[in-house]
Amino acid sequence: MTSQPFHGVLVPVLTPFTSSGDPDAGRFVAFCRWLLEQGAGGLAVFGTTSEANSMSGAERMALLDGLLEAGIPAQKLMPGTGACSLTEAADLVRHAVGHGCGGVLMLPPFYYKGVSDDGIFAFVSRVIDKVGSSALKVYLYHIPPVAQVGYSVDLVGRLIKTFPETVVGLKDSSGDWNNTAALLDRFPGFAVFPGSEVFLLDALRKGGAGCITASGNVNVPGIRKVYENWRTPQADALQAEITTLRKALQAYPMVPALKRIVAHFHNDPDWAAVRPPHVMLDQAQSSALLADLANLGFTLGERPRSMAA
Amino acid sequence: MTSQPFHGVLVPVLTPFTSSGDPDAGRFVAFCRWLLEQGAGGLAVFGTTSEANSMSGAERMALLDGLLEAGIPAQKLMPGTGACSLTEAADLVRHAVGHGCGGVLMLPPFYYKGVSDDGIFAFVSRVIDKVGSSALKVYLYHIPPVAQVGYSVDLVGRLIKTFPETVVGLKDSSGDWNNTAALLDRFPGFAVFPGSEVFLLDALRKGGAGCITASGNVNVPGIRKVYENWRTPQADALQAEITTLRKALQAYPMVPALKRIVAHFHNDPDWAAVRPPHVMLDQAQSSALLADLANLGFTLGERPRSMAA
Repeated sequence: MTSQPFHGVLVPVLTPFTSSGDPDAGRFVAFCRWLLEQGAGGLAVFGTTSEANSMSGAERMALLDGLLEAGIPAQKLMPGTGACSLTEAADLVRHAVGHGCGGVLMLPPFYYKGVSDDGIFAFVSRVIDKVGSSALKVYLYHIPPVAQVGYSVDLVGRLIKTFPETVVGLKDSSGDWNNTAALLDRFPGFAVFPGSEVFLLDALRKGGAGCITASGNVNVPGIRKVYENWRTPQADALQAEITTLRKALQAYPMVPALKRIVAHFHNDPDWAAVRPPHVMLDQAQSSALLADLANLGFTLGERPRSMAA
Repeated sequence: MTSQPFHGVLVPVLTPFTSSGDPDAGRFVAFCRWLLEQGAGGLAVFGTTSEANSMSGAERMALLDGLLEAGIPAQKLMPGTGACSLTEAADLVRHAVGHGCGGVLMLPPFYYKGVSDDGIFAFVSRVIDKVGSSALKVYLYHIPPVAQVGYSVDLVGRLIKTFPETVVGLKDSSGDWNNTAALLDRFPGFAVFPGSEVFLLDALRKGGAGCITASGNVNVPGIRKVYENWRTPQADALQAEITTLRKALQAYPMVPALKRIVAHFHNDPDWAAVRPPHVMLDQAQSSALLADLANLGFTLGERPRSMAA
């Protein structure tokens, strides 16, 4: 086990698209900068919420280059390197580590189903071997509701044991607290991030490193309050607040809903665009979502200057 | 509805790898040539059985280039263009149609789950629009047991209606005969290929165009007999024979099992190699598989001269 650079509220950053459907590097930089100003502990760009798997590897690498050229600190970045082929996964990992990123978030290969732990182990091993960098820090990305294929607790143990300086953490988007708790119990010092802030306080109390959560795109300050105050008497009340907001968001398709919120509060309608197979919220859904948020007293606050791309 | 070039027994061709794990273009050409000599009606290279999603787009395109340079007729080729992003899917389709391939076999975007028909429709439409070629013939690839995401019968109808000259067929690997029958009933003239020869005779009796089947890699002649004699009194007996062999194969992980068979009968051990997350059969599985085949009297026949790469 080794030290690792990420703590707190990490955000799987939404990806803005231009009116022609291409990734919009300028608005992406502005949004990433704003998230860091809001207190994000790191940016897990190119995750599920980022529609990363709706972009080519080249598109993802160009966006990452854009962030670094704009001065976003590489050590704050944990790019997703999800790909079904070890060739592509290795290319994405090599690019990220070559640019000094703090880590990478690695999906298992997700096309074939019913694959064995041995097969996933071989995939991750070969990617690490192909990249061959001692600077590489891998965070395993466990999200069985979407990828279907996941990292079992035993497999995580085997990867930690084989690559103790490289496999340093995991994002658990199983939605199953028992799985998160088992990881925290079994691997002390391994950086476990629940994939939803609903489990943040419980995770911190068992030694979790923070969380990596979609709703961070619209609520870093609220979630940070739990992270900063988890040992205080206010912790449970703060957790209840962020859980309530999360549950309101979860009533809608998450990616289109988050983009609709950003579009509304930043007064930038183009932010609502998604790539297929996602579809934008319709007018009725949009109105209901914004009404739900108003009822909760939610606001994203003023559009900061840095959002001007 | 328009005419389409594929009929009979189509093979989703296994992909050989070198000892260093790279796609082996030379052995791939030789194997494709042999399959056509055996009577394959077309080669659905880069399907699920081909481990296509374990290769990068660049690797797939290089293998396709190799086939064409070696003189494999482009009109016999129906490359899979499966990708989660429309950018990559469009690149693969553009490459295939630009080289004169008879068609392409198109997976729906398969990372995000629970997506709507509208979202999949938007994906396919945008790929077709981006490629913008009247020469393009799209075969939809419906394989929900693996991709999880599929083409509903209603969505197929909508795509046919919107792109009558382009969306001309479908491979149905649902394993659900009722779905195949519904497609055949509802869309006469649309080229429906069951994804297993188990359903070949039933499909032909309802107007099916043939089948696209993994076991074609080792049994084109047997499956062709059903295709050629389906109106004769022998049809049911011939179908029973190929069903028996298929069920014997299905007792093992399909891709490693087929590669093991090719390696054995062609006396070329390297053929058994798979890419992670697949794993090769172990010694006990290999022995059991070959014993099962021997009990059925199966042989792949002599290794033809064209298999020498």
